[in-house]
Amino acid sequence: MINEYPSALLEKAVTEFSHLPGIGRKTALRLVLYMLRQDTEAIDQFANAITTLCHEVKHCHRCHNISDSDLCPICGNPRRDQKTICVVENIQDVMAIEHTQQYQGLYHVLGGVISPMDGVGPADLEIDSLVERVKEDGISEVILALSPTMEGDTTNFYIFRKLSAYPDVTISVIARGIAVGDELEYADEVTLGRSILNRTLFEGK
Amino acid sequence: MINEYPSALLEKAVTEFSHLPGIGRKTALRLVLYMLRQDTEAIDQFANAITTLCHEVKHCHRCHNISDSDLCPICGNPRRDQKTICVVENIQDVMAIEHTQQYQGLYHVLGGVISPMDGVGPADLEIDSLVERVKEDGISEVILALSPTMEGDTTNFYIFRKLSAYPDVTISVIARGIAVGDELEYADEVTLGRSILNRTLFEGK
Repeated sequence: MINEYPSALLEKAVTEFSHLPGIGRKTALRLVLYMLRQDTEAIDQFANAITTLCHEVKHCHRCHNISDSDLCPICGNPRRDQKTICVVENIQDVMAIEHTQQYQGLYHVLGGVISPMDGVGPADLEIDSLVERVKEDGISEVILALSPTMEGDTTNFYIFRKLSAYPDVTISVIARGIAVGDELEYADEVTLGRSILNRTLFEGK
Repeated sequence: MINEYPSALLEKAVTEFSHLPGIGRKTALRLVLYMLRQDTEAIDQFANAITTLCHEVKHCHRCHNISDSDLCPICGNPRRDQKTICVVENIQDVMAIEHTQQYQGLYHVLGGVISPMDGVGPADLEIDSLVERVKEDGISEVILALSPTMEGDTTNFYIFRKLSAYPDVTISVIARGIAVGDELEYADEVTLGRSILNRTLFEGK
């Protein structure tokens, strides 16, 4: 078998790129050859942005969101509701909820959901630190905003049980229902059923 | 508008990744967050592989293929047929042909095809250096292996005219026809027409 790559350096770069999720060796080669056509300054900037991020990034010691400092901009913002915590799976979920501009409370990033199949148990997640925050910070409401999967529901239930020791704290779950813009007839039965059970008052103005 | 990213370092890395072809901001974020979960050693290795490649890679001064030295392993291999040149558009094409293990000659990487729409003229490609090689190195055959597009055909024709000054050199084009494994009825007319015109003797053994 002849060596596929004309250059060992090229092969190494392709191998590194192909370790990324969803990127095979063909795509990796395409990306690397694209980078080769850029000037070296742009490449140094690219490499630098990634190494700097990985060496210097911190996690907020309160909500475990990614942050440039020990306290993230959300936790550090005094105008946000300090009594409400929204529990999410990961950083992308924080960004998605922030993007709606409908939430003014704080977050708590679990870092995953309980999934015995993937070997993820409660101890691997930031659940104890959530309970600690509820206990220490006088939280009045915990909103569970995990994905409506079996793992998400399991995690919801686990957190619900852990927090039942604090009866003053309201525990809510984000609404399940027909997505805005969706056709009713194509919605699955469970979602449609829940959307009827959890109907809200019509605000006709 | 609230800042979308919880960390400026994260945003910078995402921006850098999203400059790559076919990678949008969502994919870029996914890739960067994946990298964040790796240990810093792996990240340094990744960044290092790319910067080393871009700073140290060379192009073979004969065929313009990527190489670790001034002469690529193919041009430098004395067992390869030094009298035949296969003209290809880019480095991937060299790798594809090498992969077939059916070709023992040398290559010439043009670096593109003539495309007035994209502002690529003959002077932007390694055509003059090809003519130089044909003149100097006593080449007996030039195989044109460009894509069967309008741009590829234009480039073929341009090279053919340039090389007509050397009547001793055979100029051939890779065969167009029905791909192995393809259904005849789904082949386009032009391809099927050419495959009939350019039929070869049946080697029934």
